[in-house]
Amino acid sequence: MNNIVLKFGGSSVSTIAKMQNIADLLIQRSESERIVVVISAMGSTTNELMTLAKQASNKPSKREMDLLLATGEQTSIALLTMILKDKGANATSFTGFQAGIKTAGHYTKTKIVEIDDANIHHQLDAGSIVVVAGFQGINDAGDITTLGRGGSDTTAVALAARLQCPVEIYTDVDGIYTIDPSLYPKANKLDEITYEEMKELSFLGAKVMEYHSLDIGERYAVPIYVAKTSSASQGTWIKESAMQAVKPVTGVSISDQVMLVTIKYLPNDNRVVADVFVRLAEEGVNVDMISESYSSKNLIHLSFTVQRDDEEAITNLFQELTSSYPDVQPSYETTMVKVSVVGTGMRTQSGVAATLFKLLAELDVAFRLVTTSEISISFTIPAQDKERVALAMANRFEL
Amino acid sequence: MNNIVLKFGGSSVSTIAKMQNIADLLIQRSESERIVVVISAMGSTTNELMTLAKQASNKPSKREMDLLLATGEQTSIALLTMILKDKGANATSFTGFQAGIKTAGHYTKTKIVEIDDANIHHQLDAGSIVVVAGFQGINDAGDITTLGRGGSDTTAVALAARLQCPVEIYTDVDGIYTIDPSLYPKANKLDEITYEEMKELSFLGAKVMEYHSLDIGERYAVPIYVAKTSSASQGTWIKESAMQAVKPVTGVSISDQVMLVTIKYLPNDNRVVADVFVRLAEEGVNVDMISESYSSKNLIHLSFTVQRDDEEAITNLFQELTSSYPDVQPSYETTMVKVSVVGTGMRTQSGVAATLFKLLAELDVAFRLVTTSEISISFTIPAQDKERVALAMANRFEL
Repeated sequence: MNNIVLKFGGSSVSTIAKMQNIADLLIQRSESERIVVVISAMGSTTNELMTLAKQASNKPSKREMDLLLATGEQTSIALLTMILKDKGANATSFTGFQAGIKTAGHYTKTKIVEIDDANIHHQLDAGSIVVVAGFQGINDAGDITTLGRGGSDTTAVALAARLQCPVEIYTDVDGIYTIDPSLYPKANKLDEITYEEMKELSFLGAKVMEYHSLDIGERYAVPIYVAKTSSASQGTWIKESAMQAVKPVTGVSISDQVMLVTIKYLPNDNRVVADVFVRLAEEGVNVDMISESYSSKNLIHLSFTVQRDDEEAITNLFQELTSSYPDVQPSYETTMVKVSVVGTGMRTQSGVAATLFKLLAELDVAFRLVTTSEISISFTIPAQDKERVALAMANRFEL
Repeated sequence: MNNIVLKFGGSSVSTIAKMQNIADLLIQRSESERIVVVISAMGSTTNELMTLAKQASNKPSKREMDLLLATGEQTSIALLTMILKDKGANATSFTGFQAGIKTAGHYTKTKIVEIDDANIHHQLDAGSIVVVAGFQGINDAGDITTLGRGGSDTTAVALAARLQCPVEIYTDVDGIYTIDPSLYPKANKLDEITYEEMKELSFLGAKVMEYHSLDIGERYAVPIYVAKTSSASQGTWIKESAMQAVKPVTGVSISDQVMLVTIKYLPNDNRVVADVFVRLAEEGVNVDMISESYSSKNLIHLSFTVQRDDEEAITNLFQELTSSYPDVQPSYETTMVKVSVVGTGMRTQSGVAATLFKLLAELDVAFRLVTTSEISISFTIPAQDKERVALAMANRFEL
């Protein structure tokens, strides 16, 4: 029998009743496949644990935050495995460290560096359904760590890479759309999309899957199937062999989670600018779009976007900067969204940028930062213009 | 500075506010001592997790039950450590396996076989308050395990044994009494009690500390101090050097958790009787008082007591017995309590048993099973007679 990794998110395991449905599905599939199932914490457990941590400390220790959050998946794997055994199945639960998932890097956003799959193989060989806690692992110091946003997807794809098998990601949405169907109901669901396009969409803010899990999928050529839990409707395959795109634009992604940071009157000195980004990197903050403009010969304005949940790191940065450079005026705003258009066809078909900026001019929408990659263009616009820009783009690019 | 182990139970860490008080106490003591603190799960967390498990399965897998229950202490150590760090202390949390606690035996009631204290020493040397999850460890297979009833006390005493230091157990009661003060308000609090007496009291049902933790304390000569959390009142020392008892009876213990099992018409064959106790041992059930009586030449009646939460194992035993021996009539009752009088003075002062049975006759209380040890006498009586027997004994033995 072939190996398969299945992943179910928090809303798919939010109640015992839902877990029982998943258990039935797993037992049925285990008749013809060797199953590794990765699950998240039940429902809103992770948020509740974060709230508890905030009661304990305004700035909870990140090492202990990881230890705390890891209890969420530990609870859900124990319960799902109890249910599987109750239904007569052979099943074994593994926390991240028991599944051999070794991590490195910043607490609360560590990366998987290695998987020792001996325990998993042993249980699969013994005919067991293996239930693995998503989102967590163990680092060299023996600390329990978590993988950050979308961590359970990363666990699932990394396990599939290690076991050289496909992975199926079950979620709230029934596949990948050309544009968010809640903004544009006529949006098409894609049967296939390339890793590259999906990574670009994810990096630019699409929430279906996180960038890191897609990156692992691409590097190890793991076929990834995204579909809706307990739905007969066909999902989307993410893989290398997607057909050559005929349209220049495959999808549009809109990210609400952007925070636009502006630092005015910074000394015009590359070491100072580098220092800003080094400090942010040390805090594990990913800086996205960046622009620099001259205020005078000796002073510059620096703008960039980060994720909104990096607010604390940004506030700390501002304090450090204003104590080092008293004239600096730092600020951030959270009223912008980032719109991205993505398509491998943009490599060979020109004119997408021109079409786009013409469209924004017609709509009278002011954009701030702009970045481009080989297969994407992104720009920030006021949140209030989100819907009409999305609609206009979907029409113009026939999405 | 000297090492010290402090242990706080679930009701002492049931809220963030209570944890903050404990954190203040720990910080104050860390000025003059190297602190290892062992805590239980918050308040009723363990019961809530058990309820969740019962929803998942009528007979939850014990391996997964341990994994599930272990999240309770993992949560509380993360939060207490966050609070300590928030208050500026140097602190590190360790789960059971991170603290090097190796276990063996039945899931849900494993025993500590070894402690690798390298991580703890490393952190103590670095000036850290070390916060350890009680009640849990890891077995040879790499499974997370729990230590059963009173497991956090066991963790605390075992760590103190390993670190060769005293342990302080903070709990709901302010020390060890000669008899339960809720039954007999004039009961005296003891300044000291020997391990032996305390073990006997615990084995016979006193709830202050579990037998296993006291046994470890005795074998490694760990001074144990039992006192009330956040109370100035003096507690009780449990240690070897208690003064020679002058009274024959040091304390009376009453256990409500007794289940009296009776198996009638069992074949009069030692192999059958042995088989009953082997089956119970395999389920990890501790059999306490035992009596056998003849029904006829070939048949016997067997009675014994177990803990009430072993009901499931008893029900299973009954099913197996009735299928092997159709004539057997098994039953159990939960309307009995076990009363025990304990005192090392009973070794040298005779007449305690006589006094006791005379007293019961005067009170017209029928007792069922009786067992004696070198320093104790126990008997089962109807639960409804509990108070008046306790009062009469406290008077007669001047407790």
